[in-house]
Amino acid sequence: MNFDLKEAISVLERTPQTLEVFLTGLSDDWLHCREGDETWNIIEVLEHLIEGEKHNWIKRLETILKEGEKNPFPAFDRFSHLNQKVERSLEQTLLEFKELRNESLSKLKNLIHSDSQLELTGYHPAFGVVKVRQLISTWVVHDLTHISQLVRIMAERYRVDVGPWEEYLGILKKR
Amino acid sequence: MNFDLKEAISVLERTPQTLEVFLTGLSDDWLHCREGDETWNIIEVLEHLIEGEKHNWIKRLETILKEGEKNPFPAFDRFSHLNQKVERSLEQTLLEFKELRNESLSKLKNLIHSDSQLELTGYHPAFGVVKVRQLISTWVVHDLTHISQLVRIMAERYRVDVGPWEEYLGILKKR
Repeated sequence: MNFDLKEAISVLERTPQTLEVFLTGLSDDWLHCREGDETWNIIEVLEHLIEGEKHNWIKRLETILKEGEKNPFPAFDRFSHLNQKVERSLEQTLLEFKELRNESLSKLKNLIHSDSQLELTGYHPAFGVVKVRQLISTWVVHDLTHISQLVRIMAERYRVDVGPWEEYLGILKKR
Repeated sequence: MNFDLKEAISVLERTPQTLEVFLTGLSDDWLHCREGDETWNIIEVLEHLIEGEKHNWIKRLETILKEGEKNPFPAFDRFSHLNQKVERSLEQTLLEFKELRNESLSKLKNLIHSDSQLELTGYHPAFGVVKVRQLISTWVVHDLTHISQLVRIMAERYRVDVGPWEEYLGILKKR
């Protein structure tokens, strides 16, 4: 086990600014490209991260702290952001994510003030009993998964362009 | 084909600052963790990116422009950075990468001033004939590959910690 709350927070708090630096100013062709039908573009990945801040991570943590294993977590629809037809700029989307993440981390720091709370348990509708430490670890790895997805989407756009080098580029082998 | 020089540069110029924001201040445990034996840690990935700026991308471009297909590219040792036992901080490593990347992009902009140059060809020791546009596309996707590698290395560190959520986290399925 490697989880450490302070270290986990250090990753969670870097994600919004990392995405801001990486994505701000990129062309619409980068921002709207996809790996294929039924896959997300960069904007949709950001909207999904926003949904997680609004409806997933802190809500589940609060459920564990208040109710323990008594009730399963409320369902989180991993595709709900696809139904919203929000018209806004990348900058607005990134800003909303940054603000929501800051709020989430403030709440996290207020809610968890001792290591023993990391062992508290809740009930996941699919997995059964889960611990606070697993939930927060998952939050971190979920960020990493979607950063990985963003760069994979972009790499896909140049699959044909790289020509024979495709063979050396691991990212083009992973879908 | 999607390659566009301006768009390619827009990604290449964002990589150093993205890595700076994402990595600066992370604990040594994040910076030195590995996916397993014989795999790179984050510092080693950065050293590899630095080697590419010093010995690969611009050198190959210059070879194409000067010699065409006459001589194969000089070999680039993708593992050379592992033999250097450089003692320096993450900040120094990131700074060197940023400076070298800035120089590379200045040279790129000086060397390529017309679209027709993108079609010029050189001779890759393994692949045979390759074009300038393929070389520059590969440079972009190479950045993306290593950003993806960085986050995958970090995700691996929490593989056990996420507990049953491992099943939902795509990044933990890709090695």
